[in-house]
Amino acid sequence: MSLSLAETVAAIAADMAGRTERGKVATYIPELAGVDPGQFGIAVVDAEGTLTAAGDSETPFSIQSVSKVFTLTLALGKVGDTLWNRVGREPSGNAFNSITQLEYEKGIPRNPFINAGAIVVADAILAGHTPKVALGEILRFLRFIADDEDIHIDQKVARSEQDTGFRNAALANYLRAFGNLRAPVEQVLGVYFHHCAIAVTCRQLALAGRYLAFGGRHPTAGGRVVSAGRAKRINALMLTCGHYDGSGDFAFKVGIPAKSGVGGGILAVVPGKAAIAVWSPGLDAQGNSVLGSAALEILSQRMQWSVFGA
Amino acid sequence: MSLSLAETVAAIAADMAGRTERGKVATYIPELAGVDPGQFGIAVVDAEGTLTAAGDSETPFSIQSVSKVFTLTLALGKVGDTLWNRVGREPSGNAFNSITQLEYEKGIPRNPFINAGAIVVADAILAGHTPKVALGEILRFLRFIADDEDIHIDQKVARSEQDTGFRNAALANYLRAFGNLRAPVEQVLGVYFHHCAIAVTCRQLALAGRYLAFGGRHPTAGGRVVSAGRAKRINALMLTCGHYDGSGDFAFKVGIPAKSGVGGGILAVVPGKAAIAVWSPGLDAQGNSVLGSAALEILSQRMQWSVFGA
Amino acid sequence: MSLSLAETVAAIAADMAGRTERGKVATYIPELAGVDPGQFGIAVVDAEGTLTAAGDSETPFSIQSVSKVFTLTLALGKVGDTLWNRVGREPSGNAFNSITQLEYEKGIPRNPFINAGAIVVADAILAGHTPKVALGEILRFLRFIADDEDIHIDQKVARSEQDTGFRNAALANYLRAFGNLRAPVEQVLGVYFHHCAIAVTCRQLALAGRYLAFGGRHPTAGGRVVSAGRAKRINALMLTCGHYDGSGDFAFKVGIPAKSGVGGGILAVVPGKAAIAVWSPGLDAQGNSVLGSAALEILSQRMQWSVFGA
Amino acid sequence: MSLSLAETVAAIAADMAGRTERGKVATYIPELAGVDPGQFGIAVVDAEGTLTAAGDSETPFSIQSVSKVFTLTLALGKVGDTLWNRVGREPSGNAFNSITQLEYEKGIPRNPFINAGAIVVADAILAGHTPKVALGEILRFLRFIADDEDIHIDQKVARSEQDTGFRNAALANYLRAFGNLRAPVEQVLGVYFHHCAIAVTCRQLALAGRYLAFGGRHPTAGGRVVSAGRAKRINALMLTCGHYDGSGDFAFKVGIPAKSGVGGGILAVVPGKAAIAVWSPGLDAQGNSVLGSAALEILSQRMQWSVFGA
Repeated sequence: MSLSLAETVAAIAADMAGRTERGKVATYIPELAGVDPGQFGIAVVDAEGTLTAAGDSETPFSIQSVSKVFTLTLALGKVGDTLWNRVGREPSGNAFNSITQLEYEKGIPRNPFINAGAIVVADAILAGHTPKVALGEILRFLRFIADDEDIHIDQKVARSEQDTGFRNAALANYLRAFGNLRAPVEQVLGVYFHHCAIAVTCRQLALAGRYLAFGGRHPTAGGRVVSAGRAKRINALMLTCGHYDGSGDFAFKVGIPAKSGVGGGILAVVPGKAAIAVWSPGLDAQGNSVLGSAALEILSQRMQWSVFGA
Repeated sequence: MSLSLAETVAAIAADMAGRTERGKVATYIPELAGVDPGQFGIAVVDAEGTLTAAGDSETPFSIQSVSKVFTLTLALGKVGDTLWNRVGREPSGNAFNSITQLEYEKGIPRNPFINAGAIVVADAILAGHTPKVALGEILRFLRFIADDEDIHIDQKVARSEQDTGFRNAALANYLRAFGNLRAPVEQVLGVYFHHCAIAVTCRQLALAGRYLAFGGRHPTAGGRVVSAGRAKRINALMLTCGHYDGSGDFAFKVGIPAKSGVGGGILAVVPGKAAIAVWSPGLDAQGNSVLGSAALEILSQRMQWSVFGA
Repeated sequence: MSLSLAETVAAIAADMAGRTERGKVATYIPELAGVDPGQFGIAVVDAEGTLTAAGDSETPFSIQSVSKVFTLTLALGKVGDTLWNRVGREPSGNAFNSITQLEYEKGIPRNPFINAGAIVVADAILAGHTPKVALGEILRFLRFIADDEDIHIDQKVARSEQDTGFRNAALANYLRAFGNLRAPVEQVLGVYFHHCAIAVTCRQLALAGRYLAFGGRHPTAGGRVVSAGRAKRINALMLTCGHYDGSGDFAFKVGIPAKSGVGGGILAVVPGKAAIAVWSPGLDAQGNSVLGSAALEILSQRMQWSVFGA
Repeated sequence: MSLSLAETVAAIAADMAGRTERGKVATYIPELAGVDPGQFGIAVVDAEGTLTAAGDSETPFSIQSVSKVFTLTLALGKVGDTLWNRVGREPSGNAFNSITQLEYEKGIPRNPFINAGAIVVADAILAGHTPKVALGEILRFLRFIADDEDIHIDQKVARSEQDTGFRNAALANYLRAFGNLRAPVEQVLGVYFHHCAIAVTCRQLALAGRYLAFGGRHPTAGGRVVSAGRAKRINALMLTCGHYDGSGDFAFKVGIPAKSGVGGGILAVVPGKAAIAVWSPGLDAQGNSVLGSAALEILSQRMQWSVFGA
């Protein structure tokens, strides 16, 4: 009497539609504060390439920190493992925008998924080019892996972040003070704020995540996006560091590598089985989507997708 | 031309025997400081129950922090999920014996695998009994899951820890100051120091880990040690928190849930596939066995056992 | 129309008697929790040796951290400036019982007036003797400088501290872990808890402080307690570190070197002019006597006793 | 056989000229790195208004953080004690440019003499005006209290700071993120970098400090710069916070309220007796002038000027 994936996904969407505990929409980026919290979307791509979706899976939302998975992939492609001289691979044990860790560890961010780490990654992508060129590269990469030329940057969100992103500006200046940024601070922040402001739907995001689920390969275009080993290692980072200071708890409850963003989206990767995107704008205290996390917990259990055992 | 498990294990043991970079034997427990660093053992139990071993797999070593996996299992069996009111489930982002985190988070250790967390777990096992009764329970549990009545406590090591364990005494007193210990400090420390001083061989440790690899079941005695869900969640904790401030790196390189100890032992769990014990006394800067980690990295790669993808 | 010292002291006592904002009596030492907050005492000894007192100046109270001034004096007498290899001279910028600083600075307390520093000072006084001998020495010293053989230890308070002083036990074990204690932890804590449990009256405390106000000399016995230079430097430490994380504010408002204790007492020293003791059990958030601080602020202003200008 | 002030000052200058242990010139501001470390100047103004000087007392140097005393005075004149809602009055227990404290205490700098605090003070002076107007006001104030129209900003130093002041930019952005800056970050930094780049001689600086030594009054122009109470309280802040994490030690050794800068200058204030300026570019590990501190220690001792006793 086990349900099919399609039935499970539909049941989850129905369950979520009825929930009233939805957390709080992020308010620190003014442009995001107005998003309707009553939305939930889910999309799953399986090993056969079948897409199963439900809820608001076609509504674009702000990708925010989920983009850090893709910029990390790009930066590793450019500079290889030398990136790890500038960014660590350890969970942070701290809020996503903590500057204390950076002082204590002399300008080396603990991992590429906290803000400071992602800012270093943006600097590695810049690599002497203009912000425009770097952003073009990021967009092209995302469109390629998602098979979708429509993916774009929401300029209003980008501007809203730029006007209010003082903590990120503090982090970037601090990194620069330690010599861990090469491009001018404003250029790096420009790239960072804009790639966080990319708009995606659950469908687009799930498709974009396929290379991580399926050994680094691009299922439709053929060929490799990254090596199998690199896909595996990015998945490991998502599991240990993907949910800020809620990463341990997410691994404990859901057991699937995933990366969340304050826009309410989560990309989850079941190695060999599925790439998943969920979205719901209400966040918990750690900045992770309340319904998104709940949906992934149920999905993981029903499909026995935890990497830690059936 | 892929090698069998037996061939792979033998090759790894041969490889390790030739390595000269072996790290440093822990010196802060005087009784451990004299262990010969030139040793390496490995034992693997697969889903069929076959044991494959090589090197010094029959030499007893000090279990140290690997015991925290088993005391956690016991404590959860006693007090259930209420344990999580007293201990967190997040990676620590700090040294294993850091007291700063405890002050900042008001006496709630970040996870049960750092010392402070394991001391709370020991307190939960005590639960009104004498240290002798509590230690009896821990030993009986370990003998049961390892199918081996010979497992015992090395009293010399226990005494050595007790005489020099001032940091752990500081942690325990601090926990008590926050009301997060119930038994007297000396009793809790007594239990803690003694369960860390249990001596095991690689074979014994690999057998003891079977319930985590195989859905909570006891393969030979039959029946359940823990529910499948609990086994899965303990594995998740091992992956995110099992190697102190080297947990992220271990997940990145090896991709298998594992718990290390400063005795040089590591217990690793491949869900559905294998329970593994490796041992070599030389440690890296984070306190994890250098050869043990290297052996698991190779084994994971060769057998495609990473939980994050083939 | 400036008032005489006697008139000023009387006016302050009258003012304090009418105040209703009195802070909270310390509760973490059970034996102190029952003290009546409605008490206030003051005693001033001037350069002529005249004692001016008002309010509950003859009621004994628990000296607590004010004793650290006298143990510091004793320890400097024993080991001289080598003490500064084991304790710093900087304000702590932290709560009085913070253990974080100790971890960060590798077992060297920032100054002798925070608990960790005073525990090191107690160890320096022990110096191979028994706690009983060390405490005898401390009592004898205090009786000598106060010209009063009645000063004694309140054993109930000492026991109460010993039973509940887990934070101090944590600090002491931590110091021991860093090698910054020589005597056994329990012995050092025994000395520390007992010297904090000495009972004094305002009169006794003001008399005891004379050597600091008057160039290191003992006004009645004649001769020197310490050199003028040492008295001066202890005063400097009282000003920068005497009120925990309220030291800056106290210097700003009162401008007189002083040391407070959670029993509600404060010893203040006006170089060349007066030694002052005030007492009232209600504390502010930093652990300093509310009325005691207020009384000293008024006294300093009226008598133009601030060391920072008239 | 006590020497006169003039003889003492001359003897100190001669002593310093022969010293070889001179510390290191600050290198993090490139324009300062080239200053000749072999210089030493001293100037003292006494209660009669007599100026006694020796050494390189007429050589201009970069005022750096000593300017914070004067901007604090100005800001208090503008916004009064409401400034203390935005800045604390406690020693920092940390390096002068630590950002950790700011995170921990939610954007309220511990005191106005660490960089973050002085940046808030600069914002209070801006108060809706342009940086040019604010800087004009600061310069006018300094010229007035020093009776010297020649005091100016060294534009090269200002530019050098602006080009490399990434830590200060981080602090300012961080303060803005907490809502503790009102003017745009660049404007506040512009004011801050420029007032730190003012060039003064020892003579000018000693004259500028007279209002603090002599009850808030302007000895030559007549009238008050600030009230006697405010002068007293600024002196208290200088004593507890004037030398970064070396403030306690300076109080211990010298016992005079003083403020140092990384240009090697120190302004010291002996209430009722003297205003002193010393300068020598070599710094100790805490960023304070080595010879400047040594000179003040000797001067304090010889003249019995410690506020903590003769």
